Amino acid sequence: MRVSIQSRLHYHFAQPADVLLAVEALDLAEQVIVQDALTMRPDVERRDVIGGGGDQRAKWIHAEGDLEIDYTATVDVTRIVRDLGDLPATPRHELSADVVRYLFPSRYCEADQLVGFAMNTFGDLSGGAQATAMADWVFDHLDYVPGSSTGVTSAADTFMSRQGVCRDYAHLFISFARAMGLPARMVSVYAPGIEPPDFHAIADVWLDGAWQLIDPSRMSDIGNVVRIASGRDATDISFMTIFGTAELKEQSVHVTLE
Amino acid sequence: MRVSIQSRLHYHFAQPADVLLAVEALDLAEQVIVQDALTMRPDVERRDVIGGGGDQRAKWIHAEGDLEIDYTATVDVTRIVRDLGDLPATPRHELSADVVRYLFPSRYCEADQLVGFAMNTFGDLSGGAQATAMADWVFDHLDYVPGSSTGVTSAADTFMSRQGVCRDYAHLFISFARAMGLPARMVSVYAPGIEPPDFHAIADVWLDGAWQLIDPSRMSDIGNVVRIASGRDATDISFMTIFGTAELKEQSVHVTLE
Amino acid sequence: MRVSIQSRLHYHFAQPADVLLAVEALDLAEQVIVQDALTMRPDVERRDVIGGGGDQRAKWIHAEGDLEIDYTATVDVTRIVRDLGDLPATPRHELSADVVRYLFPSRYCEADQLVGFAMNTFGDLSGGAQATAMADWVFDHLDYVPGSSTGVTSAADTFMSRQGVCRDYAHLFISFARAMGLPARMVSVYAPGIEPPDFHAIADVWLDGAWQLIDPSRMSDIGNVVRIASGRDATDISFMTIFGTAELKEQSVHVTLE
Amino acid sequence: MRVSIQSRLHYHFAQPADVLLAVEALDLAEQVIVQDALTMRPDVERRDVIGGGGDQRAKWIHAEGDLEIDYTATVDVTRIVRDLGDLPATPRHELSADVVRYLFPSRYCEADQLVGFAMNTFGDLSGGAQATAMADWVFDHLDYVPGSSTGVTSAADTFMSRQGVCRDYAHLFISFARAMGLPARMVSVYAPGIEPPDFHAIADVWLDGAWQLIDPSRMSDIGNVVRIASGRDATDISFMTIFGTAELKEQSVHVTLE
Repeated sequence: MRVSIQSRLHYHFAQPADVLLAVEALDLAEQVIVQDALTMRPDVERRDVIGGGGDQRAKWIHAEGDLEIDYTATVDVTRIVRDLGDLPATPRHELSADVVRYLFPSRYCEADQLVGFAMNTFGDLSGGAQATAMADWVFDHLDYVPGSSTGVTSAADTFMSRQGVCRDYAHLFISFARAMGLPARMVSVYAPGIEPPDFHAIADVWLDGAWQLIDPSRMSDIGNVVRIASGRDATDISFMTIFGTAELKEQSVHVTLE
Repeated sequence: MRVSIQSRLHYHFAQPADVLLAVEALDLAEQVIVQDALTMRPDVERRDVIGGGGDQRAKWIHAEGDLEIDYTATVDVTRIVRDLGDLPATPRHELSADVVRYLFPSRYCEADQLVGFAMNTFGDLSGGAQATAMADWVFDHLDYVPGSSTGVTSAADTFMSRQGVCRDYAHLFISFARAMGLPARMVSVYAPGIEPPDFHAIADVWLDGAWQLIDPSRMSDIGNVVRIASGRDATDISFMTIFGTAELKEQSVHVTLE
Repeated sequence: MRVSIQSRLHYHFAQPADVLLAVEALDLAEQVIVQDALTMRPDVERRDVIGGGGDQRAKWIHAEGDLEIDYTATVDVTRIVRDLGDLPATPRHELSADVVRYLFPSRYCEADQLVGFAMNTFGDLSGGAQATAMADWVFDHLDYVPGSSTGVTSAADTFMSRQGVCRDYAHLFISFARAMGLPARMVSVYAPGIEPPDFHAIADVWLDGAWQLIDPSRMSDIGNVVRIASGRDATDISFMTIFGTAELKEQSVHVTLE
Repeated sequence: MRVSIQSRLHYHFAQPADVLLAVEALDLAEQVIVQDALTMRPDVERRDVIGGGGDQRAKWIHAEGDLEIDYTATVDVTRIVRDLGDLPATPRHELSADVVRYLFPSRYCEADQLVGFAMNTFGDLSGGAQATAMADWVFDHLDYVPGSSTGVTSAADTFMSRQGVCRDYAHLFISFARAMGLPARMVSVYAPGIEPPDFHAIADVWLDGAWQLIDPSRMSDIGNVVRIASGRDATDISFMTIFGTAELKEQSVHVTLE
């Protein structure tokens, strides 16, 4: 299916600042970019971030004063959605280095602290059935409350407060998965139909030898989301990492199915 | 019923240190001291801690070198054990200052962080039924694992790890209670029949205008425990607070029903 | 000197809620109340919180809908300000139970975690010289940044972020003091000349057998502040503890020297 | 110079467990492996972890019962040690994806919480002078105390406790560097002359377009250390990550200069 994306970021930088921008859709077999364009006013110099193994198309820019960033894209998504419940866990000794790193706790995913709970709750399951039970648990036990979390809220906090937004749902799911030895990572996406429209955060879990998307918040249909970036947790996939300070003037995201 | 207590602490203090000692049974209507004796070798100077509203009979001692402390007591316990499930919560505006202070979070009881979970889980109940459900939850969801926690383990840690010892069971119960607006405090007791024999930590919850004992670990029979001290959390009721360092040589507690 | 106080709280309670109100000045030898009045519109029932050892004149009220609370007072402050640097620490074995409790860590004052730093930094000093060095350190190393902390910011957070408001300055000072075995507590006050005018939080440290006021933020002159409440940390001395939710409509504090 | 390595790990696995083993020296221009051998008794199946960009030569093994692992190596180290103080920071927009990831906080390096302190303390410096000042600060302000930290001690904990071991020195240095926008990562090494002999943890900081080794503990001479693995923090570079439980029987490390 064809997905149409329009995102706009308008910030004011009182002081010059380096900015890492990650708003562009990835061009993958499962999501082919028909056309896309990143426009900036003023047209500041941009530099592709080299490497990264295809995890994101981040760019470095140097911002000062007013900066308007527009990204438009048309993407054909042909992702085949598999029933995770049937997928086996990949034997650990087959995991490559690029996957192994997603077994470990990270800044906002304290998997090590949640091993006790995860063992008690999900210890009788394995593979895709276990991952599905984790995502169901997160959906069933959290309340979606805009404004209930901040940029430093971690999975441990969310496990106690029992509320959050998509970022928090993903962090908690990822923490459960890693606590049980399933590689999991965070994924930023454009998702049609999210209310209110915004960048969306979901998760990848490694099953049957591949990354499988899963949305513990159930806000999106993973058959039609468009991947932007992936990483250990929110810290790696921010659409805009500002090394300095900036004032938000306007931010909008429109994602529609054609 | 008559409870017989023998506790012994043997420590070595390489450097002189102030020590706050709280090992003596309280003399209360519900537990009458028939006889008791606190003996120290050498017989260091001891000073009663003045005040405290009957919460404990703490003493200051100044320790240096080897110190052996023996406490023996015979106590008649006539506590009437009420069925908490029937007791109403006390209206908040009737709570006195000495009880109000146990509504708030403390060092090891982060009640504020657990409000979300407590509301979702215990929000439909009130009073004694709510307190009982909390204690049942703690018993059902934690594993008693000696050595699984340390002196700085807090209720939030235990909520995630799902294991601990009596101290951790009490901290988590107290945190739930305070999260829902029920005053709760920690109580150190001598308890017959604990295996292995040791000082024991349980909780008081304020219901129907009085403190009601409750043991979330179900290790003791609250009809025959002997109160030593009470406070906000483990930090207030330690049987021995050492301002300095000491080496443990021997520690034993024997509590029997006559 | 004569201090004139006018404070006003206007809140809207969409749901009925119990509220613990602590806005009234204490009547003490060092601060004699000439006249004061607490007025509420509507005139909801109020109940004095019984007990508390003179630490505060808190009241329970039951609020619903719009509630305007006005407190006016005229207080003669005759506090003698002593030079803390000359005061000895009180020997520990002379501390009473009401002071001993302020030796321990609390929810927002993780004194136990800061022992290492405090020993290295203040270990060569004692008594009032030590307390003064701690307050100086806090003033010298923190930046006063309104909005940089929240209701759950603790002393450990502030020690790292190096910024905060009066509440955070007090929490960090109190944590240092307790880490070194000096009893310390938090005190809410009315303080003339604070900019912007607001409730103010400072600290008491126990030296030479009495509580001595100290303001690590240096915003107030402790010779003319008016004590409202004291407790282990911010959780105990809030001017308004709401058991439920409320919307702030207006809040103002005016404190002037006549 | 030629470095001779002998490390031995002897563990007992009561239950079968997957183990990620990272004890082998990297073969790099700066450290050429003359010969090395990894021997296991019994000779369990081993699988190279594929990929990882040369960060480590980790292997997956499946352990059960007694397992003795011996690693011996002879390595010619020709690393040129540069004076970091003269090296410029690399402009951010030249950082590649493999370096960008080391700008962010991780599980044990809460760089985000230490920005305030780092700005105040190191804000006037840049590049290698800044990195050197950070390493000096860590050395000057921490006490090396074996046993003072555990596997879950983080940089924030160490910043408060002011003590730790090589792991903690590295975590705190890395957190300061990231807080100021310098990429930094953790490195496990074999280091001649460490007392007691053990695996050692130091740091890499990205300056002048390359990773530069730095040892905030000053225990090793970075001119002769042998790199094993690098990663975001201790979680990534453990010499042995056990997915299950094991009992340590013997562990020894001998590293000598020939």
